[in-house]
Amino acid sequence: MITAQELGLVEAGLKKAVASDVDVLAVASEHIIGSGGKRLRPKLVLLSYKAAGGEDLAAVVPLAVAVELLHTASLVHDDINDSSDLRRGRPSVNARWGNSLALLVGDFVFVRLLDLIAGCETRVIQVVADCCKAIIEGETLQMVHLGDLQLSEETYLRIVELKTARLFSACCELGGLVAGASSGCVTALREYGRSLGMAFQIRDDVLDLIGDEADLGKPVTSDLMQGKMSLATIHAQQQSAEAGKGLLSDDLASETGLLWKTGAFEYATQKAKEYAAEAQRSLVALPESLVRHELFELADFAVARIS
Amino acid sequence: MITAQELGLVEAGLKKAVASDVDVLAVASEHIIGSGGKRLRPKLVLLSYKAAGGEDLAAVVPLAVAVELLHTASLVHDDINDSSDLRRGRPSVNARWGNSLALLVGDFVFVRLLDLIAGCETRVIQVVADCCKAIIEGETLQMVHLGDLQLSEETYLRIVELKTARLFSACCELGGLVAGASSGCVTALREYGRSLGMAFQIRDDVLDLIGDEADLGKPVTSDLMQGKMSLATIHAQQQSAEAGKGLLSDDLASETGLLWKTGAFEYATQKAKEYAAEAQRSLVALPESLVRHELFELADFAVARIS
Repeated sequence: MITAQELGLVEAGLKKAVASDVDVLAVASEHIIGSGGKRLRPKLVLLSYKAAGGEDLAAVVPLAVAVELLHTASLVHDDINDSSDLRRGRPSVNARWGNSLALLVGDFVFVRLLDLIAGCETRVIQVVADCCKAIIEGETLQMVHLGDLQLSEETYLRIVELKTARLFSACCELGGLVAGASSGCVTALREYGRSLGMAFQIRDDVLDLIGDEADLGKPVTSDLMQGKMSLATIHAQQQSAEAGKGLLSDDLASETGLLWKTGAFEYATQKAKEYAAEAQRSLVALPESLVRHELFELADFAVARIS
Repeated sequence: MITAQELGLVEAGLKKAVASDVDVLAVASEHIIGSGGKRLRPKLVLLSYKAAGGEDLAAVVPLAVAVELLHTASLVHDDINDSSDLRRGRPSVNARWGNSLALLVGDFVFVRLLDLIAGCETRVIQVVADCCKAIIEGETLQMVHLGDLQLSEETYLRIVELKTARLFSACCELGGLVAGASSGCVTALREYGRSLGMAFQIRDDVLDLIGDEADLGKPVTSDLMQGKMSLATIHAQQQSAEAGKGLLSDDLASETGLLWKTGAFEYATQKAKEYAAEAQRSLVALPESLVRHELFELADFAVARIS
């Protein structure tokens, strides 16, 4: 229900947004933006807009572009802080151009969203503002807890909410707001997005442990190596002292085996499915439509995906 | 003409803007924001607003806070890229908390300005958007030319315009716009700000070479050590092969002597004075007032200051 032509508008908007007379900024920004990715966040904006009855796509494309810029900027800065060399199957910006330039490229990609939201109404900009704040708070909280084997499930879920779910939630809310939907409908979209984002990130963290490098376009177990705990490892740590100790070891194959043994992946997957079901339940408040059904299926995809 | 009470509103706004449930973000942001600085950019917003006839200060304080957040965020990221340990006489955020957290603190301080501009009209947000883009382009251009002894005066001035003058210009334009000034008045303020910013940065670069560390709150000759050329060194390089070669040496005392000999500081200071005079000429288009006189004197201060 999102046509190739519509996605083409988003791609064109992204390309235009990062144009610059300073060549290296344009080239490095296009390197990361042109590497693709799922474009899940722009799709959420567009789908939510349509699900809420919006019909003038031109009104919402700038926001679809803006959320992808925000997401991309956060990836560029994350890759610096995580010393990641690979992103979407390509060298990361920091790997290719060094940390100093990558810092500026992330800044650049981010500030370009200002142009796109300049003409929006106050509450739209406020949604973007709140979610930017949340993302950085989530990233910071995650950093503070790096290597913290005692991380609680509660804190983990708070990090996921801040760093991922709030942006998903904002995407859906923005679509609804621009469509001029009722406040009930906007709330439903916001809650759908939040639950979807929780499911998506929990799945992401599972994939980091058991996914395939070729599918993911980045190395597996990199979270574990950086000391990032997730639902599976938190569960394993609580279930088995042996698995907990293994988190500190370099023997990741044996650690993954222990995670399987403690049922850690089933536990995390179950949680992801619960959030996906919650997302699907939120959709009931929206008028029935093909687009609503797509949003429904997206929640299934979020927990079943392998990349 | 800006009262202590008015500046107090800016300080309170800054403090409020960087509040966060994530303690380290709040603490590190307050560390850099609470370290003072001249608050020149907020003052420019307030003075321009008053010079343009604005009378409801509450309408413009959020923008005064926003421009200081933008400036502060860029300092935090600059200090990472320059490996600077000292800022405003205190340890830099990167020196105190490390590069990774400093990156997020810079992001955080920056995104908090979204909250403050959310309620502004489109052209106000557009001015902020354009100037954010310019700052990052200027910083990037500067980085690309690090160690480039052949840097032309033209490129140097372009860097200064982008990284510094455009924000000064935006501050003054924003004040005028919010005051509802005529387009002639807004243009005059914008041009005043641009010229003032050029003068200010040229003086800044001279102070880096001949200033006093205690006055500046940061080490002198740090630009030179990082390979940043400025008007004085460009001039010296063009005047004397010996001075040019000296730029590569570690003997900074002797290099500074050579800079004096070639008249490099007089040359740079003369340029700064020309920009200051240009700034002052722009003010003629504004109605005569005490505030206009303050803006006039600010241009003299920009080139005479020792810190």
